[in-house]
Amino acid sequence: MTETKVHDVIMVGAGPAALAAAVYTTREDIETLLFERGVVGGLAAVTDMVDNYPGFPDGIEGLTLAENLRKQAERFGAVIELGEVTNIAKEGKLLKLETTSGDMLAKTVLIATGSDYKKIGVPGEQEYYARGVHYCATCDGAFYRDKRLVVVGGGNSAVQESLFLTRYATHIDLLVRSELRASEVLQHDLQKMVDAGKITVHLQTATNEIVGEDNHVVKVVGTDNASGKKIEFPADGVFVFVGLKPNTEFLKNSAIELDEIGLVKTNEDLETNITGVFAAGDVRSGSTMQIATATGEGATAALRIREYLEGHKQTS
Amino acid sequence: MTETKVHDVIMVGAGPAALAAAVYTTREDIETLLFERGVVGGLAAVTDMVDNYPGFPDGIEGLTLAENLRKQAERFGAVIELGEVTNIAKEGKLLKLETTSGDMLAKTVLIATGSDYKKIGVPGEQEYYARGVHYCATCDGAFYRDKRLVVVGGGNSAVQESLFLTRYATHIDLLVRSELRASEVLQHDLQKMVDAGKITVHLQTATNEIVGEDNHVVKVVGTDNASGKKIEFPADGVFVFVGLKPNTEFLKNSAIELDEIGLVKTNEDLETNITGVFAAGDVRSGSTMQIATATGEGATAALRIREYLEGHKQTS
Repeated sequence: MTETKVHDVIMVGAGPAALAAAVYTTREDIETLLFERGVVGGLAAVTDMVDNYPGFPDGIEGLTLAENLRKQAERFGAVIELGEVTNIAKEGKLLKLETTSGDMLAKTVLIATGSDYKKIGVPGEQEYYARGVHYCATCDGAFYRDKRLVVVGGGNSAVQESLFLTRYATHIDLLVRSELRASEVLQHDLQKMVDAGKITVHLQTATNEIVGEDNHVVKVVGTDNASGKKIEFPADGVFVFVGLKPNTEFLKNSAIELDEIGLVKTNEDLETNITGVFAAGDVRSGSTMQIATATGEGATAALRIREYLEGHKQTS
Repeated sequence: MTETKVHDVIMVGAGPAALAAAVYTTREDIETLLFERGVVGGLAAVTDMVDNYPGFPDGIEGLTLAENLRKQAERFGAVIELGEVTNIAKEGKLLKLETTSGDMLAKTVLIATGSDYKKIGVPGEQEYYARGVHYCATCDGAFYRDKRLVVVGGGNSAVQESLFLTRYATHIDLLVRSELRASEVLQHDLQKMVDAGKITVHLQTATNEIVGEDNHVVKVVGTDNASGKKIEFPADGVFVFVGLKPNTEFLKNSAIELDEIGLVKTNEDLETNITGVFAAGDVRSGSTMQIATATGEGATAALRIREYLEGHKQTS
């Protein structure tokens, strides 16, 4: 079934980029529908404390920021629907979206589905998902008070979240496949925790298997790259921070151009190769995976969407 | 005199773009000095209520937002110096800045000087500046309670600020050189005020002179484009909203490339044609004159500055 109604703009996703865009579009009386298949507020909503979102001198809890963004968008009339968009295609001058609520028509579309946590793909990872294997320290760290943890990864997130998890865990083994790639200040802070005996860093160490007993994780099996030796790390839980995966599977049958890692390509007006389809935030190739950047791009995308709908460039 | 100290980054300006960038750079232990010749917080600081900066569901006063941004940057160690940068040039691999505090050296520079209000350039405009002629309704509107005003301009700002000024003024004559170029929703709201007799819109009307008596404005003289007839508009004050002027005069002797209206050109990494010199916010060609966009670009610029200083691209 296809709705006969033509929406001004349908936004795919309801994270910071889409919510910021929706504040702008709805304030300008552009009718705006957002589709969210997961959590309103996106990754911001599952972040403990956001220290660097400009405007909050002492930081703000991710969940509070997400709620603020939602309220602000809804205040001006944004409608958020829980459901999933499964394809986007041109339909004459309009865009047809296949969704879990049926087909829908829109004059413009904003793709703002963000990116998800990457998995390492080892035995036990799926089996113990959310009951021993985690990707969000804020959400699940507190379950490991006075427990022993393994963290997998060597980038900024892995180090930052390891530092955070020392609030709870008695000890953390940090398994780094090659070398640490975290920023200097993070490595400096990490060293303090190493010196304090809270974290042990294992460089050049592969993660091979997450092993459980009686329905809970008991250890992680790794390999020392140099010697090829197996090493066992006793652990009550595992946190994996090995990067992000763009949420663009739903575009695989569309004509929308993606880059080599699956992010949506746009021009500097944030428009994709399909006219009327825009992208903003963590899902956009060239974005920087920051909430500030996502909301900034959301604002810009909204202005471009208005121009597209009005059929001309704004002047002021 | 040239300081021998080499700064990690000198930011020219301390508006939302620079302050957001400074939050990011200082959190990463990048030593950061900001130069501000006017008001910390830039145009945000002289904006009444900011309704569309993402994260504040009921809006936030511009001055409060500016203060928040300043506090957040200073919390992590940003240093703000009052003074002016008068030129930027390459000095080997470094950058030399001529400033009112002497010459300074930096590894990187962020240009974030924003844009200023444009003047109309008619007799009386300069003479009655700030005592009858104004460019900021928030700052000076309250002086015109129960007074009669003229507003000059036809874009979004002119209409938006006219609507705001009806809080104070008994009547507003809006002089529009050609046609209204404001958004539909603004024109809709304007019509309500026209119907209520609060605002009279004069299309195709040139503004020729601001006339005063005894040290205060008494009228504005305009011309009806069609008939060529002079028209007099009695007024206690005049507000001018005819656009923005990029603050890039200080770059006129530099090699930094500007666009046709004087905005700084950058690539998608926000780097100018001079390596190590970046630009963000209202002064950047392609930016959208929104606080959200400025802070987003500030964050992005900071990440690019870090990469430049580290000599490689970040991965996570």
